[in-house]
Amino acid sequence: MKVLELCEKLKLSYEGNGSLKIVSINTLEQAKDGDLAFLFEEKYFSLIQRTKASCLVISNKFKIENKNFTYIISEHPKLTMAKILELFDYSKQLTNSISERAVISKTALISDNVEIQALAYLGEKVVIGAKVKVFPNVYIGDNSVIGENTIIYPNVTIYPNTIIGSNVIIHSGTVIGSDGYGFVQINHNEHYKIPQLGNVVIEDHVEIGSNVSIDKATLGSTIIGEGAKIDNLVHIAHNVIIGKRTLIVAQVGIAGSSKIGNDCVIAGQAGISGHLEIGNQVMILGKSGVTKNIPDKAKVSGFPARNHLEELKRHSMSNKISELFDEIKELKKKLE
Amino acid sequence: MKVLELCEKLKLSYEGNGSLKIVSINTLEQAKDGDLAFLFEEKYFSLIQRTKASCLVISNKFKIENKNFTYIISEHPKLTMAKILELFDYSKQLTNSISERAVISKTALISDNVEIQALAYLGEKVVIGAKVKVFPNVYIGDNSVIGENTIIYPNVTIYPNTIIGSNVIIHSGTVIGSDGYGFVQINHNEHYKIPQLGNVVIEDHVEIGSNVSIDKATLGSTIIGEGAKIDNLVHIAHNVIIGKRTLIVAQVGIAGSSKIGNDCVIAGQAGISGHLEIGNQVMILGKSGVTKNIPDKAKVSGFPARNHLEELKRHSMSNKISELFDEIKELKKKLE
Amino acid sequence: MKVLELCEKLKLSYEGNGSLKIVSINTLEQAKDGDLAFLFEEKYFSLIQRTKASCLVISNKFKIENKNFTYIISEHPKLTMAKILELFDYSKQLTNSISERAVISKTALISDNVEIQALAYLGEKVVIGAKVKVFPNVYIGDNSVIGENTIIYPNVTIYPNTIIGSNVIIHSGTVIGSDGYGFVQINHNEHYKIPQLGNVVIEDHVEIGSNVSIDKATLGSTIIGEGAKIDNLVHIAHNVIIGKRTLIVAQVGIAGSSKIGNDCVIAGQAGISGHLEIGNQVMILGKSGVTKNIPDKAKVSGFPARNHLEELKRHSMSNKISELFDEIKELKKKLE
Repeated sequence: MKVLELCEKLKLSYEGNGSLKIVSINTLEQAKDGDLAFLFEEKYFSLIQRTKASCLVISNKFKIENKNFTYIISEHPKLTMAKILELFDYSKQLTNSISERAVISKTALISDNVEIQALAYLGEKVVIGAKVKVFPNVYIGDNSVIGENTIIYPNVTIYPNTIIGSNVIIHSGTVIGSDGYGFVQINHNEHYKIPQLGNVVIEDHVEIGSNVSIDKATLGSTIIGEGAKIDNLVHIAHNVIIGKRTLIVAQVGIAGSSKIGNDCVIAGQAGISGHLEIGNQVMILGKSGVTKNIPDKAKVSGFPARNHLEELKRHSMSNKISELFDEIKELKKKLE
Repeated sequence: MKVLELCEKLKLSYEGNGSLKIVSINTLEQAKDGDLAFLFEEKYFSLIQRTKASCLVISNKFKIENKNFTYIISEHPKLTMAKILELFDYSKQLTNSISERAVISKTALISDNVEIQALAYLGEKVVIGAKVKVFPNVYIGDNSVIGENTIIYPNVTIYPNTIIGSNVIIHSGTVIGSDGYGFVQINHNEHYKIPQLGNVVIEDHVEIGSNVSIDKATLGSTIIGEGAKIDNLVHIAHNVIIGKRTLIVAQVGIAGSSKIGNDCVIAGQAGISGHLEIGNQVMILGKSGVTKNIPDKAKVSGFPARNHLEELKRHSMSNKISELFDEIKELKKKLE
Repeated sequence: MKVLELCEKLKLSYEGNGSLKIVSINTLEQAKDGDLAFLFEEKYFSLIQRTKASCLVISNKFKIENKNFTYIISEHPKLTMAKILELFDYSKQLTNSISERAVISKTALISDNVEIQALAYLGEKVVIGAKVKVFPNVYIGDNSVIGENTIIYPNVTIYPNTIIGSNVIIHSGTVIGSDGYGFVQINHNEHYKIPQLGNVVIEDHVEIGSNVSIDKATLGSTIIGEGAKIDNLVHIAHNVIIGKRTLIVAQVGIAGSSKIGNDCVIAGQAGISGHLEIGNQVMILGKSGVTKNIPDKAKVSGFPARNHLEELKRHSMSNKISELFDEIKELKKKLE
């Protein structure tokens, strides 16, 4: 693709050689002759001397005098990056085909234009929407429904009765619908299993990373709201509800029946206790341990998590304890 | 099933319409006409106005005047819930069948009444007990033994020589018997691998969640004691011994050779260092970091973990540091 | 194997019965008659009375008078242990065979002497080096390259375009090359996906535990340096670079674009923020939260992580706050 064509497609302007052919996309450091690279942050300006890229996508806020490059100029550089990468992303291509080496029950309902690869397993009455792509070693349990345009990468497990929306992406190793952790203690020495009869519902436009565990509800549904994005190795317990567009970063754990609002951000390795209500637009910083309900728009950190500014203050205070000892020593002297 | 029949089966009493047919089990919020729901906690009494359930299972401690429902009355409501859910749980049903699309070595010893689904793999001399259910994409390595009534969900990996008891449940993505993390440093710049020749032994009535990692022992066995219940994404290192009925909540990590007693509870995201001895009936709170042995019946929290009451005190103290600054300021004033 | 032969092979000396036949290797506690066991630490001396082992490998620093055993004497007992265990490790044996029940694309390039087991999946143009062992339910995506002598255990997922070196071991459930967690927020209510076009490069002699997630780079490569060893359930985000021989213990999380030096140790459950530079020979203690760059050879702990000695001091200070209250009370008394 030529710079000219790319700019036309994405409605961007450029400076330099519009007929330059883009070989591939790369980082500033690793780019070779003919490559396109991105320069969005001033702190990387120094790399401009060393990069071998031929074309740079830059923010319209930058003024760069170096005439060795062709520049593509963007008002929203990160979004432009996403859209350029899309043009070069062949991984989402669909070959309309169902492998003979997949195991598909006779009662499965499969749309016309799908790709089901070898060694995938589709249970009884599974419903597969149009343009769905199912990779090898995926297990989809009985009665599960997969919406249009959804991609399920290898080695994903989807337990029976799961409902997955359209335009969902689920990465490898992820498990949707394992039993919630529910037991009754009897006779002081036996944990009697509470059967888990609910399911998991994943709404449209959700992306789930690799090796994530989402448990089914005891009754009713564990719900992942529309547009939520979940990173790797996250634990979501039974009956949890995740709001729309909420971001959950890697290794977060959310205990049973907690309800997270819309547009929240839960940073890496945070934990949230069970049966809590977290409001909308809440920000929970990394490694926090949330033990109480949190109102809308709060920003919390620490364990137990509290208002982030308070936590910062508490932390800076705890660095000053030795000062206190010094002060007291001095006071004693004076007193004597 | 009619209310009458259900009560007869579980030896419960009821008030209202015994011939009411239960359509399904649901939560108070999501129940529809004909459904049975559970009301065990007073805080949910308000939901009684809105629920569309026809039948409510309630504690015998409650007195409810509302005549719109049929009530099933229980002395042990949570246990009753477990037993009612069992009656409606069809997931454990077994079709006596071995798929032709499973890969089973000729030397495997398989009991008569089992279900081995397509794409499962059973290695040399594997032994499968009666009423075992093995789902697709499960790998069972050579010489492993699976006891009666055990369920192994899709995409589980069981390394060779693993011994699994009866009535065990292992959820998807879980790995039993990967190599322990053992290396010797030589020449200051090479980590030489210590081969891991031991195995994992999982005793009866254990349940293991999804995406759990349990490493085999270097020599001897990593042991998960009878009736222990392990949640999702837990790490159990080589040569660890978990006591009977111990509960290990999600994302806990236990380092090599540590020994956990019976009837312990280890809450979410806690970590336990290697080569420790944790007593019986110990409670380790969430996100704790245990660095020392812990005696029987202790309750610990924090990092490094200590007696929970001490930790609470320490925490409340650290909130009062600014008070100390104020006090000293005042003292100074007085002194002058 | 006789003690004599073993000692000759590994160039070790022995005392006692050289023609003793070693039945198997075991722990001191579980050893039976004819077994070889290891006694490397003085704290286990008491076990010598009870062990049923016939042969003990001991450090040349020990003087043991008990004549019931044959002793193998070693200058480097842990390395000797590794080398003896190797002689008894049959798990690495290779049967030169490619299963007909594996799914292998016609364009895959497979060396002569390999073992590809049933239900493995090899995509287009995959390259498999000599003496590689691929277990069941492994997925290897298009264009990936696997170097000589590498072992890939069951249920591993390798996304397209991954480059894996020689003598690498990857344990079950691990995912190499899932999409990095990258989104652009647009219109304040949509997370627009940034396609991830890079890959993962794993250099020679790396070992990766079970259920690990390593994301591909957005552009360029996520790199795991030569000889690095990664434990279970670790998260490595997009564009991270891990230095040579660095050890990463279980449940560690490393956020996007961070660069870890050579010969570091990152202990269990630690977290490292994005875009950081961690020097060489850095030691990051368990549960630390690293939020800043760290220079070479530093030892850090706590959250936010700081110099370990400072953190210890800070911690011991925070235990003395109640003393401060007492001191002030006394001062007040005196003043009055």
